[in-house]
Amino acid sequence: MITSTANQRVKEIIQLQKKSRARNQAGVFIVEGIRMAKEVPTEQVVQWYVTEEFYKKHREDLPQGMEKPEFVSPAVFTAMSDTQTPQGVLVVVRQNSYSEEDLLKAENAHLLVLDNLQDPGNLGTIFRTAEAAGVTGIIMSRDCVDIYNPKTIRSTMGAVFRMPFVYSEDIISTIERLKLQGIRVYAAHLDGKNAYDREDYRGKTAFLIGNEGNGLRREVADCADTWIRIPMEGQAESLNAAVAASILMFEVSRQRRQS
Amino acid sequence: MITSTANQRVKEIIQLQKKSRARNQAGVFIVEGIRMAKEVPTEQVVQWYVTEEFYKKHREDLPQGMEKPEFVSPAVFTAMSDTQTPQGVLVVVRQNSYSEEDLLKAENAHLLVLDNLQDPGNLGTIFRTAEAAGVTGIIMSRDCVDIYNPKTIRSTMGAVFRMPFVYSEDIISTIERLKLQGIRVYAAHLDGKNAYDREDYRGKTAFLIGNEGNGLRREVADCADTWIRIPMEGQAESLNAAVAASILMFEVSRQRRQS
Repeated sequence: MITSTANQRVKEIIQLQKKSRARNQAGVFIVEGIRMAKEVPTEQVVQWYVTEEFYKKHREDLPQGMEKPEFVSPAVFTAMSDTQTPQGVLVVVRQNSYSEEDLLKAENAHLLVLDNLQDPGNLGTIFRTAEAAGVTGIIMSRDCVDIYNPKTIRSTMGAVFRMPFVYSEDIISTIERLKLQGIRVYAAHLDGKNAYDREDYRGKTAFLIGNEGNGLRREVADCADTWIRIPMEGQAESLNAAVAASILMFEVSRQRRQS
Repeated sequence: MITSTANQRVKEIIQLQKKSRARNQAGVFIVEGIRMAKEVPTEQVVQWYVTEEFYKKHREDLPQGMEKPEFVSPAVFTAMSDTQTPQGVLVVVRQNSYSEEDLLKAENAHLLVLDNLQDPGNLGTIFRTAEAAGVTGIIMSRDCVDIYNPKTIRSTMGAVFRMPFVYSEDIISTIERLKLQGIRVYAAHLDGKNAYDREDYRGKTAFLIGNEGNGLRREVADCADTWIRIPMEGQAESLNAAVAASILMFEVSRQRRQS
C-alpha cells in the first residue's frame, strides 16, 4: 500500500490531474468515481488505485480487468483526487486515438466543430448530449479546452469513451475537407439569416460552434456554407454554448427520426 | 472609504453572498461585475460598492441611480466578492416578488416547473435559456437551489431580472392549479411514451423538470397530463437537466413560430 504523498507515482497522478501537457506526454488521463470507472473500456485501463474501504465495499461491482488495484491510504487518495469528496477509486486510462479521416467518412455524418471552446463543463456537456443526439464525431480547434481535463471527463458522463473526436491543428483546412466530403457546414451565428429549423439536416451535416464569450471567429464562420441563428426572445443576447449546440443537435435528430 | 473587513456592512455582504437565509431575511441579493450591474433595474438597487480603480475606469459607463457608490479598498472588495477575479463592482439588489397567480394567468402560458433542482449553474442556465425561448414564468419547488445564489445569478446573464418566477411550498397543489387554468402539463421522463416532438405545444404548456441525479419525484411526475421523453441514441442514460429543459423550451418556440 502507498502511504506517502512523496511516492513518485502519486506525484505523477497529481501532475496528470493538473496538467494537460503531462497527460498528453504520457498518453493517458484520469477517471474518478465508481460510475465513471465502470465505463472505462477494459483495454484502455493502465492502472487503478483504490482505498481499502472502497475496495471492500465495491469489489463485487467492479468490471473485469480491474482485479489488481494499487492500494493507497485515504490521505494519499485525497491528495491524488481532483474532487472535493473522493470516492476512493481512480483509474489511469489510455487516451483514445481517432483520425480526422474516420470522422469525415462516417455514414450520414453529423458532426460538431468546436472553435476555441474554453469551459470544461460546457465541453463535457456537449459530449454527453452529442452521444444522445446521434452525433457521429466532434472536431475541436487546437485551442479548445482539453477534453481530458478532470472536470470535462466527469461532465461527459462516459460519452468520452464512445464519441469519436479529434483536435485539429488547422480548423479552417479541416472545414474545407468536410465540404469536399459533401458535408454541409452550418455556422451557428447571432447574425445568421435563417432560423436553424428552416434548414434540412437529413443529409451530411456539421455545425460550427464558437467560444462562450466571443462566438465564432470571423475567419472560421466565413468557411461555412450557411449561417443559421437560433431565434431569441426577450433581451437575451446569446445562449450558453452547450445549450446552443444541444438545440441544433436535437433538431438534426428530430428531422432524421421523422424522415 | 471602507478599509477594514471588520466593518459591519462588509460582514453583512459576506453573509449575503454565502447564505440564502441571510438573503431572504434581508430581502436582497448580490450582483457582481459590470455586465450584470448594468442590467439591475434602477428601482431595485439598494446600495452599490466599488473600488476607486473601478469607478475611475467605468464612471461614464454606469447606469443612472448608481451615482452614490460606497467606496471600499481593494482588499475589502476581495473579501466581499464571490468571484476569483473580482471586477471591483458589487450591487445589493432588492429581491423580485411575483405571485403564482400572475404566472398562471399569463397569456399563452409557457411555464417550467422545476422539482428539486440542485445545481446553481444549471438553474441559472435554465433562466437564461428560458428568456430566449419565450418562457412566461418559472415555478420552483421549495427545495430547489436558491435562485439568488451568486453562481446562479451569474449564470442567468441578467434573465433573473426579467423572468417571472416563484417558489412553491407545495408543488403538487401548484400543478393542480396549473391544470385548472387549462395549462397542459408535460413531465419530461425517461419512461415517457411519446417523443417530445410529437406533441402540440401551441396551447398553454408547462414542463416538469426533475433533479439532476434522480429525475422527477414519482408523486410529482404523476400529476402530469402526459409523460414525454427525449429520444436518445448510444449508451447515453440521461441528459443534463438544463439541456433537457432547453430542448423542450425551444421545441415550443419552434412550433409557435411556425403556427
